[in-house]
Amino acid sequence: MKIQIKGIGITKFGELWDKSLLDLALEASTAAIADSGLDRKNIDAVFVGNMLIGKIAGQDHLGPVVTSSLGLNCASFKVEGACASGSLAVHLGIQGILAGTYKNVLVVGAEKMSDASTSQITWGLMGASSSKERKAGLTFPGLYALMAQAHMQKYGTTREEQAEVSVKNHYHASLNELAQYPFEISVEKVLNSSSISYPITLFDSSPITDGAAAVVISADDGSKGVYITGSAAASDTIDLAERKSLTELKATQIAGKKAMEQAGISIKDIKAAEVHDCFTIAEILAMEDLGFCPKGMGGKFIKSKATRLGGRCPVNTSGGLKACGHPVGATGVKQIIEITQQLRGKAGKRQVSGANIGLTQNVGGTGATVVVHVLQN
Amino acid sequence: MKIQIKGIGITKFGELWDKSLLDLALEASTAAIADSGLDRKNIDAVFVGNMLIGKIAGQDHLGPVVTSSLGLNCASFKVEGACASGSLAVHLGIQGILAGTYKNVLVVGAEKMSDASTSQITWGLMGASSSKERKAGLTFPGLYALMAQAHMQKYGTTREEQAEVSVKNHYHASLNELAQYPFEISVEKVLNSSSISYPITLFDSSPITDGAAAVVISADDGSKGVYITGSAAASDTIDLAERKSLTELKATQIAGKKAMEQAGISIKDIKAAEVHDCFTIAEILAMEDLGFCPKGMGGKFIKSKATRLGGRCPVNTSGGLKACGHPVGATGVKQIIEITQQLRGKAGKRQVSGANIGLTQNVGGTGATVVVHVLQN
Repeated sequence: MKIQIKGIGITKFGELWDKSLLDLALEASTAAIADSGLDRKNIDAVFVGNMLIGKIAGQDHLGPVVTSSLGLNCASFKVEGACASGSLAVHLGIQGILAGTYKNVLVVGAEKMSDASTSQITWGLMGASSSKERKAGLTFPGLYALMAQAHMQKYGTTREEQAEVSVKNHYHASLNELAQYPFEISVEKVLNSSSISYPITLFDSSPITDGAAAVVISADDGSKGVYITGSAAASDTIDLAERKSLTELKATQIAGKKAMEQAGISIKDIKAAEVHDCFTIAEILAMEDLGFCPKGMGGKFIKSKATRLGGRCPVNTSGGLKACGHPVGATGVKQIIEITQQLRGKAGKRQVSGANIGLTQNVGGTGATVVVHVLQN
Repeated sequence: MKIQIKGIGITKFGELWDKSLLDLALEASTAAIADSGLDRKNIDAVFVGNMLIGKIAGQDHLGPVVTSSLGLNCASFKVEGACASGSLAVHLGIQGILAGTYKNVLVVGAEKMSDASTSQITWGLMGASSSKERKAGLTFPGLYALMAQAHMQKYGTTREEQAEVSVKNHYHASLNELAQYPFEISVEKVLNSSSISYPITLFDSSPITDGAAAVVISADDGSKGVYITGSAAASDTIDLAERKSLTELKATQIAGKKAMEQAGISIKDIKAAEVHDCFTIAEILAMEDLGFCPKGMGGKFIKSKATRLGGRCPVNTSGGLKACGHPVGATGVKQIIEITQQLRGKAGKRQVSGANIGLTQNVGGTGATVVVHVLQN
């Protein structure tokens, strides 16, 4: 498969008190359409990735909310798969193009979280989990803490190794002016910050973020540019308790393998990746389940600096969910934008030299949904 | 395009106090898979259409909730477009097949509404509308009442003509054992029932319903059966106040034209149709905007009995949203199942003789989303 990324647009990530969800979605969308060089009348379908605004502010039906605000009457869709909503929307936009039904598709992921109360956000986000887990009082830090503890016990992964994920991603964010937290932190800062759910501390955790990201994707017209050459999604049990293993995400393994097969590449070909670091342990799992390193070695792999800017394959040059921010429905689209910037050679201070093949991995819940994309020049 | 409908499955529609959303979704899904004759392992993507369960019961991320309950690890998606969620999910499942990415797709629409309080349901459903309309205190009966009043003033459409929609659909439902209200009513009953928002009465309005409907759709394998030959979606402004006309749904006109063009048919070829009669005026608008009759003549067309069983083109033989019930996310899929039954010649007492081409029209909100499908033998 070969789908062209014609345009990208992204807002500042952070606490954006003066902007609504629609403001953000339109800002990113109009920027992406402008970058594509297309007249907006040539957009023939709009896919919106969002998880929370229905529960927070009562607004569903985002497809036509966004589409008609752009002055369009084309087909429009809202796609939801928890924190993977954005990349599921990209995946489905791709299907519409490959089907020959749509030529130019706008995909916009957007989330407005900072207006909501803590209880609204907690209730909202726990919709990604199972009713059993909600009734048991588990929240996402608690669920990922179970995975982190299992990984520490089984493979000897240390707290310092987990902290290195956060330190690296904050370093990358310090080079990204759109990031929510564009400053560096130390391993000590992570280890000594407030405990959320052992072993996870505040600085192991991604924040509450407002933001939007949009791409215009099109059928291959033979021109030079960045292409999506692999796109795969997979599912796993919604309940963590029903999995055979707490130390791997089966859906990452399935989606990663499929997407790389579609692209005809192997993990060794990847020069830059954006993966789902909602908590530091999640990036460690992603490294292993995608095949960047053997199972159990994720902590050591990150500590080796291989995934830091200047290393063998920089990961989360945007700052990741941890430091660039995690506006849930926007995250999957933002990952694709960061890799597009890298492949265009337009990533500024964060540029990975020689980047020609990149990958994104976006997780919903504790891995019940995983979506992997491969991008190439 | 040619997409085979391999299997269909549907639950009873009504107040199903002893069943959860997941119970209903699995009942319809397993029935559809059984009807398809496929081993469930051959399902390679699952699309779930649902609007409300996140807001009512906190459960989002329905893709893997349903998919993993079926024991599958395949790609899964939740699609939302208000009351058009089900047929948007079908449309996107079709794209995945036409793209060559998926071979056999399960689409399940499900909604569980009767557990929710009136305020939860009102707040939930109004998510399909705009924040301005919500702030103005408008609810859906109020919005459709504005359209009905405009139609009455402009075209002389009478209350009796509107009531005939409900009378016809209740008659059809009396022949459908799965319908929520399988009994006949009179024009007087409609006119004299409680006023909801003038001119709309209780018996002009579709009910609160629990239910699920599922289809297995596949790439054309050349075998005999029912095929989807047209599938199109269109958008309009979310605010009724921003439309040029209150007496037409532009999105129905666009989607209807496209779907019939794809199928290579005209409106005269349609032998049976299921359209979105959330309120009786909506069916009148659908008749006109799809081209069954000239603009303004919808009331007279329905009163002529042309769309009653035995007439030229029976409409809503299932009983429609009004009398079969309206479990929001399930409705679009149920429409496709009813037409499939008609084309298979398996509609029992509701059978339309000679039915070989059928159409479905599913509306989100007040017409901000409309999806039209054409089915053929």
